[in-house]
Formats: sequence, structure tokens, C-alpha cells
Amino acid sequence: MNDTMEALAARKSVRVFEDKPIPAEVKQALFTAAFTAPTAGNQMLYTIIDVTGQPLKETLAEKCDHQPFIATAPLVLVFLADARRWLDAYRAAGLSPRKPGPGDILLAMADAVIAAQNVVVAAESFGLGSCYIGDILENCEDIRRLLALPEEVVPAAMLVIGYPTEQQKRREKPARFDGKYIVFENAYRTLSPEEHRAMYLDREARGGRPGADFAAQMEAFWNRKYESGFCREMNRSAGVYMKAFEE
Amino acid sequence: MNDTMEALAARKSVRVFEDKPIPAEVKQALFTAAFTAPTAGNQMLYTIIDVTGQPLKETLAEKCDHQPFIATAPLVLVFLADARRWLDAYRAAGLSPRKPGPGDILLAMADAVIAAQNVVVAAESFGLGSCYIGDILENCEDIRRLLALPEEVVPAAMLVIGYPTEQQKRREKPARFDGKYIVFENAYRTLSPEEHRAMYLDREARGGRPGADFAAQMEAFWNRKYESGFCREMNRSAGVYMKAFEE
Repeated sequence: MNDTMEALAARKSVRVFEDKPIPAEVKQALFTAAFTAPTAGNQMLYTIIDVTGQPLKETLAEKCDHQPFIATAPLVLVFLADARRWLDAYRAAGLSPRKPGPGDILLAMADAVIAAQNVVVAAESFGLGSCYIGDILENCEDIRRLLALPEEVVPAAMLVIGYPTEQQKRREKPARFDGKYIVFENAYRTLSPEEHRAMYLDREARGGRPGADFAAQMEAFWNRKYESGFCREMNRSAGVYMKAFEE
Repeated sequence: MNDTMEALAARKSVRVFEDKPIPAEVKQALFTAAFTAPTAGNQMLYTIIDVTGQPLKETLAEKCDHQPFIATAPLVLVFLADARRWLDAYRAAGLSPRKPGPGDILLAMADAVIAAQNVVVAAESFGLGSCYIGDILENCEDIRRLLALPEEVVPAAMLVIGYPTEQQKRREKPARFDGKYIVFENAYRTLSPEEHRAMYLDREARGGRPGADFAAQMEAFWNRKYESGFCREMNRSAGVYMKAFEE
């Protein structure tokens, strides 16, 4: 164990923030953390939108599955997978680039998320809390218009960042599944129904909920997530984004 | 500046490793770093393949754009976006899940990459070097067969990890583009040809190559990356992976 490992282990999602601005030099350090992240071919295939306008924050909060806490975060960053910047760079050099394909945008999405996670790690080191908002993938048409996105640019992640309230600091980090269900040697394998049940019940027990009802909890989760309106919308919207990269 | 920021700034990709194994407890800590990463809905939408077989490492080195150094890395990890595990978990609870869509797999890809970047940060803290291999997105049919991947599982990132040689430790980290071209306030904007030129030449100058020829360098890069065979293969292969998620 070392300080880095302790910091990674301590980090948990924060959704309630103190009404306290982030100093300019700390904000700059967070961007620096993004820029120092690994990036494919040193291309920085991402763009970061720093959402400073309060009306825009509020609209994003609404468009990201109606989560008002987003609008109260001192810092809201949208990490865009940017398959556009290189097109324009090639054109500026007199070349005629092909349309970006699905590989280009997936590589750019990885680049954007790698940069975002460096910001999460850096934020923790300044006592800042953060939360990913996966819902930024929803409502493609609105998000494109609000953020003026060309077709070749796709939101890969959104982060809200701020100083955690005392209550949030005290909140327990949720237990994770045991690693034996997550790491396999040399090949993928599907888990048996018994393993799924054990994986889930073990996590619940470690999270202070021994004896949880597997089927009931899975059904509740299924209704809240996989079969929810926001999840269907995320699939529709992501399909529209990906359509632009079909060959 | 703090220790975390210094560690993030110091980290650079390492492709040449000492012939020195990674202690079991360090390897375990790297996995722990992955598991503690943020994950959508606490679902851990990823699976990690720990590639320990030397023949498999060599085949992956070949299938990932013929890069022999991959086979010499003490630790090779494939981070899979896993939209399959939850299907089986729902089935184990007696539910009949819909087919995963493009939103499900993009969310899982973000989850997988977030976990991978935590491993990169943790590796640095143990004096280990790492390198992302984006080429794992290529050769879909071979990779599916080699790693026994169901259709709902897609490689999001590959990491090679090991102790850097002295030469690698001394290597300069490449300069990045200036942040003013990467971060925009409230909306995306496309850069002008002049800005592209300035962005590129500024980076080259900071990287010790003042007076670089923009058009010539862009054309060389275009040939080596965007118009290369591996990039076309990555687009073809990613298209096959994404096809499984079309609605």
C-alpha cells in the first residue's frame, strides 16, 4: 500500500457540494492532469467543454435524466471524443481526409475517458469530490445543439466536481464485486447462475446487507436501470451518434 | 502542485521493460486499483483478462499491429467492456433482458477505460511503466476467438505493464498541445487552419523541434496513422463489434 493506492481507494462519487468555488489555480491543475494523461499517438483526441453558464448547467441537468445536483456543481466538464479536430488539421495541411469510422471514434472515446479519469484522481488530491454523469450520452439532438457539436464529436463522459459536504465525506463507499468474478486468466468465461447469485450476495453482505433477496433486488435494479426510460433513451441517442461513423 | 499531480505529470508510456517479474502483491494491488475506480451504478461493466500464457501474448502482439514488445511485457491486461455479465445476472434472477444497445456498450467501454486508467496511475506509484495498446480493437474475429468473447463483450483497452529500462526512464515525455486548443467554454468550436498550424508548431517547438514543417509533418503522420493499414483495419473491426449492438 502507498499514498496513491490509498487515494484511489478513498475516492467515491460525490453528488452534494459545498457552496464554495474552486480556485482558478486548482481548476487549471485539473486541466493539466487531463493533458498529461496517456493519449493515442500524442494526438489528444478529445475536447473538454468547461460549462460555466448557469442556464447551460441547468439545461444539462435536465437533459441528463433530470438530476438537479448537476446544476449546483461548481465545475461541470464535458469530455468529448473528438474525431473532428484531426480532419481539420489534415485539411489545413492540404490533405483530403476520409470520413472517420467506428474505430476512430472508439479510440477517441478511450482518449477522452482516460483524460477524465486523470481529472478525477487529481480532484481527489485537492480534496474535491467528483461524479461521472453517464447520462450525457442521452438526448443526442439537444446535446449537439446545446454544445454546438459537429457530427464527428461525441460526448464520452461528463464530470461534476466540487467540495463535498460533511455528509458526503462520511458516506461509505459502496462495496464492489469480488475480483474473482471480474478478472479471468487468458480467456473470457460466462458465469453460471449460481456464480451470479454468489457474486451479488457476497457484495451485498460486505455492504452491510446480509441476506439480501437476489431475485427481488435484481428486478428492482432492472426496473431502475436496464429497463428504465433513461437507459432506452441512452441507447437510442448513442445509436444516432454512432450512425455518423458507419462505413 | 502536490504528489499526485507530480506523479500524473511524470507518467509516460513505456514500451521496453526489464526482465523482472511483478510481485504477486503488486499485481493484486493493480487489480484493486481497477476495482476501486468509479463505475456506473456500481455495476463494474467490465472484465479484465490477465494474459499469462506466453503463446497468447505472442499472438496478441502479432494481432495488435505486429508489435513484438507486447510479448515481452511481464503483465498484459485486456480491459473488456462487458455488456454480457448483466444479461446473465438478469437471467439468473428469472428475467428476460433485451439485447444490449449502443448506449449499453459505450457506457461499459467508459467503465472499462476508467478502471484501466486507475491501473496506469497505480502502476506508476509502484515504479512500473505502462502503455495502452489501442490496436486491441483490430482483428475482431481473431480476438473474439483467442479470448473467447461473446458478442456482447468488446475490448476497450489493452495495457502492457512492467519495470522500465534505464533508457525508458530517461526518455522525455512528449510535449502536448496547449490547453487553449483543447478546452472551450460552454460550446465546441472548430479551429481555423491558422490555429491548427499554430497548435502543431507550438507543440513541436516545446518538444525541441522548432521550425518543423507543418504540412510535411502532417502528411507523414497521416500516412503513418490515419491512412495506415492498421487504422483501416481498426475501423473495419470496430464496425463488426458495434454491429452486434445495433437496434
